Amino acid sequence: MKLSHIDEQGKAKMVDVSGKSVTAREAMASAAVVMKPDTLKLIKDNKLKKGDVLAVARVAGIMAAKKTAALIPMCHPLNISHIALDFEFDEKESAIRILSRVKIMDKTGVEMEALTAASVAALTIYDMCKAVDKEMIISDIMLLEKRGGKSGEFKRKKKK
Amino acid sequence: MKLSHIDEQGKAKMVDVSGKSVTAREAMASAAVVMKPDTLKLIKDNKLKKGDVLAVARVAGIMAAKKTAALIPMCHPLNISHIALDFEFDEKESAIRILSRVKIMDKTGVEMEALTAASVAALTIYDMCKAVDKEMIISDIMLLEKRGGKSGEFKRKKKK
Amino acid sequence: MKLSHIDEQGKAKMVDVSGKSVTAREAMASAAVVMKPDTLKLIKDNKLKKGDVLAVARVAGIMAAKKTAALIPMCHPLNISHIALDFEFDEKESAIRILSRVKIMDKTGVEMEALTAASVAALTIYDMCKAVDKEMIISDIMLLEKRGGKSGEFKRKKKK
Amino acid sequence: MKLSHIDEQGKAKMVDVSGKSVTAREAMASAAVVMKPDTLKLIKDNKLKKGDVLAVARVAGIMAAKKTAALIPMCHPLNISHIALDFEFDEKESAIRILSRVKIMDKTGVEMEALTAASVAALTIYDMCKAVDKEMIISDIMLLEKRGGKSGEFKRKKKK
Amino acid sequence: MKLSHIDEQGKAKMVDVSGKSVTAREAMASAAVVMKPDTLKLIKDNKLKKGDVLAVARVAGIMAAKKTAALIPMCHPLNISHIALDFEFDEKESAIRILSRVKIMDKTGVEMEALTAASVAALTIYDMCKAVDKEMIISDIMLLEKRGGKSGEFKRKKKK
Amino acid sequence: MKLSHIDEQGKAKMVDVSGKSVTAREAMASAAVVMKPDTLKLIKDNKLKKGDVLAVARVAGIMAAKKTAALIPMCHPLNISHIALDFEFDEKESAIRILSRVKIMDKTGVEMEALTAASVAALTIYDMCKAVDKEMIISDIMLLEKRGGKSGEFKRKKKK
Repeated sequence: MKLSHIDEQGKAKMVDVSGKSVTAREAMASAAVVMKPDTLKLIKDNKLKKGDVLAVARVAGIMAAKKTAALIPMCHPLNISHIALDFEFDEKESAIRILSRVKIMDKTGVEMEALTAASVAALTIYDMCKAVDKEMIISDIMLLEKRGGKSGEFKRKKKK
Repeated sequence: MKLSHIDEQGKAKMVDVSGKSVTAREAMASAAVVMKPDTLKLIKDNKLKKGDVLAVARVAGIMAAKKTAALIPMCHPLNISHIALDFEFDEKESAIRILSRVKIMDKTGVEMEALTAASVAALTIYDMCKAVDKEMIISDIMLLEKRGGKSGEFKRKKKK
Repeated sequence: MKLSHIDEQGKAKMVDVSGKSVTAREAMASAAVVMKPDTLKLIKDNKLKKGDVLAVARVAGIMAAKKTAALIPMCHPLNISHIALDFEFDEKESAIRILSRVKIMDKTGVEMEALTAASVAALTIYDMCKAVDKEMIISDIMLLEKRGGKSGEFKRKKKK
Repeated sequence: MKLSHIDEQGKAKMVDVSGKSVTAREAMASAAVVMKPDTLKLIKDNKLKKGDVLAVARVAGIMAAKKTAALIPMCHPLNISHIALDFEFDEKESAIRILSRVKIMDKTGVEMEALTAASVAALTIYDMCKAVDKEMIISDIMLLEKRGGKSGEFKRKKKK
Repeated sequence: MKLSHIDEQGKAKMVDVSGKSVTAREAMASAAVVMKPDTLKLIKDNKLKKGDVLAVARVAGIMAAKKTAALIPMCHPLNISHIALDFEFDEKESAIRILSRVKIMDKTGVEMEALTAASVAALTIYDMCKAVDKEMIISDIMLLEKRGGKSGEFKRKKKK
Repeated sequence: MKLSHIDEQGKAKMVDVSGKSVTAREAMASAAVVMKPDTLKLIKDNKLKKGDVLAVARVAGIMAAKKTAALIPMCHPLNISHIALDFEFDEKESAIRILSRVKIMDKTGVEMEALTAASVAALTIYDMCKAVDKEMIISDIMLLEKRGGKSGEFKRKKKK
C-alpha cells in the first residue's frame, strides 16, 4: 500500500491521468454544523422568511466546488457538469446537515469537489452565525458515495 | 438575539466595519482527519523521510487562509500578518490534528481565516490519501481561541 | 484635460496613490435588467416563495465587488468595509433595478467596486433567466453618488 | 414556463449538462459606454497614438471571459477556444460600442462568457476615464447572436 | 513570418483553436536560481532535514501551472493531466535548477504551463531566501522539449 | 545565518509582520527576454503600429503584481499603491528588457510584487511570440533597488 500522490523519493506529484478513460463520474459528500438549539432556531426562522443563510451557503458551496483545483494542490482542474447542495435540519443533534452531489464526464473523479462544496457551505454557515454562537463545530465531512472510473462504486456503509 | 449578517428583511449583507477600530487580533482553530491506523502510518513514514504530505497540507492551508474572503461570501477581505499551521499525530484516535493560528492588525477578526486554513489543510490530507482510504472523516473544525476586538477574548472551555 | 491612467507616452499605468490620505469613502451605483413582463413575473413569483434568483444575484454582486482589482487592470486592490445590494421591481419599465453601496477607509475611492457589484449581479440575473428570455438587456450601469477623497462629493443630477 | 436554475422548491442549482452532446457553439454580445464627446475624443486621440485605453480594455475583457464561472454562480466552468473583442466609435451617440465573440466545442453555450467579456471591457473603459467623466453610462449589454446546441440559432432582430 | 496573437490590424487576440484536433501533448521547461554558495548550502541543509524550501516551491509551481490562463492573457484555459517539478543542486554554478513537465490531451500545447510552473517555483525559492541573499538571479527560463500537435516535436539543441 | 521562512523544526511559515511599522516602501526589478533578431523586429514593427504585444505584457505584469500573494505561498497579501512597467529594446543583446517598479505604505516590502510583475510580463511576451521563436530565453530576473523598512536601502551594484 502506498500514497498515490507521493513518488518513490517522497516528493509530492499530481497523478498522471492522461491515459485514463473518460467516463461518467459522480460523488456525494456530507458535512454537519453542530450548534446551540437557539442558533438552529434563528436559521430556521430566517429560512421560513426568505431563507438567506442557507441560500448564501448554497451559493458559496457551488462556487467553491468550481475552485477545488485552486485550493487543493494536487487536484486536477475539472469542468464539472453539475453540482447541487441540500440542507437538512437535524433537531436531535442540533445540527444542520449538508449534502453535496457533483457530476462530471472526465478522466478523474469528483470526490474532492463534493467534499470542498460541503466544507465551504459549512464554513459559510459558521461565518453568518458566529456573532451569536462561537462554539459551533463542523464535523462529519466525508464521502458518502462515488460512482464511475476504474475503482468502481463506493458507498459508505453506515453514516457515523 | 439576531444574525449579524441578515438585515431586518432577511437579506444577506456584509457587516459594515468602517467605524470599528484597528486592533491586534488573533485566532486559533483546529480540525482533525480521522483515518485507518494504516493510513496514519503511511503519512508518518512519509514524514520521517521527507514529509511531503504534511508539507503540502501546510502550504495549502496557508494559501487558503489568504483566499478566505473569496470563498466565504460575507467575509471582509483582510491582509493577514501571520499564519502558521501545526500537525499532531493522535495515535489513540487514529487521527491527524491540525492547529492553525492567524494574526492581524485590523478592524475585524480572523476566525474565518483560521478555520478556512485548518479545513483546507484537512481536505488536502484527504486528497493525498484517498487512494488508500476513502472512509476518512474530517471533524472537530472549531474555533479554539480568539483575542482582540470589542467582543474580547474567547477561549473554548474543553475540546470536544 | 487628460486621462489619469495614461502617461505622457500613451502607456497605461496604475495611478500612484501612495501620497494620498486615508479618508472614509463611499460609492453608490446602479444597473438595470430590462426583460419581458413574463420573465419579471417569474422572478417575482420565485421571490415570493424563497427568493433564490435575487439571493444568488446578491451574493454574486458582493463577491464580485471583492474581485474588482482582479478584473479591472488598473484598479488598486482594496479591502472594502461594507457592501450591500438592493433590488427593485420596476413594473413600468419591465425591469429589475439594482442598487449597490460600498464603503471603505482608504486612499482611493470605491466607484469601480460599486459598479462591478451591480454589473455582476445583473449578469447573474441574466444567466438564471436566459433559458426563458434571451432578449434581456442590461443597461443604466452608472455611478449615482460618491463621497470622500480630494475630488469631494459627486451626485448624479437626474437618473436617466 | 419556468426558470432553469431554480428547482421545484425554489432553490438555486447548477443545471446538469452531463447528458448533453458536445457541439461547436458560438456567441456574440455587445456593450456600449456612453460618454461626453470630449471623453470620446480623448480616447480616440490616445488610440491614434498608441491605443492603450482600448488595448487595456481588450485584455481585461478577454481575461474576464475566462473568469466567467468564477463570477456567475451557476455558470459551468468552460475551456473557451477563442475570444475576440472589437471596439467602434459611435460619434452620433457619443459612445464606444464593444463587440465580443466567443467560441467553444462543449456541452453548453458561451453567452455568459461573451456578455461578461463585453461588460468588463466596458467597466475598464469607465475606470480609465472616470477622472475626467464620472457620468458615463454603460448600457446595451445584450446577446446579439448564438449558434450551436439544442436550442439552435438565436439572432437578435433589431439592435435597440 | 508574423505574430500569431496579433491580427492584421495590430490587435491582440486569443488564437482560435476550435478546429484543432485533440492529441496527447507534453512540454518540459527549466529555470535556474543563481545564488551565493552560502544560500545554496542553507537550502541543502534544510532539505537534508525536512526539505521545506523545495517542497513549498514544488507546490507553488504545481498550483501556478493550473493558473496559467489566469496570468497570461492570451492563453487558453486548459485542464492539465499531469504536472511534476524536479530540483537539482548545481554546485558549479551555485544554482538550483528547476525542471517542469506538463502533460495534457487537448487541442493546444502546454509550453506556457511548464514555463509558468518553473518561473513561479523559482520566485518562491527567491522569496524564502531573500532575507539572507537579495542578489539571487533567476535565469534560463526556457522550453526544453515539446511533443504533440501539428507543429510536431521540438527539442532544444544545447542547453545554454 | 538562517532562512526566515523556515522555523527551527524545518517547517515553512509566513513571517509574522504584525509588530513591524508601516513605512513607505518601494522596489524595482527587471527581467529580459532574449530572442532572435527577427522576433525582436516583429515586436518593434507591431509597436510602431499599435503596440499590442508590449501593451498586453504590461497589463499582464500589472495584474500579476496584484496576484503575488496568491502565487507565492509565504507572501503576505498587500494592497499596492502603484505599479509601473517599462520595456526597452536591447538590440545588442537581441532582447527586450523589462523594468518594474512597485510602491506601498505597509509593514512589509514589495520585492516579490516587482519580481512577479517582471516575470509574468516576460512570460506574456514569450507566449505571444512562441509561434515564431520557441528558443527565447527569459533571464536576468532580479531585484534592482529596494527602499524603506528596517533593512534599509538595497541597490544592486552592477547589473549582470
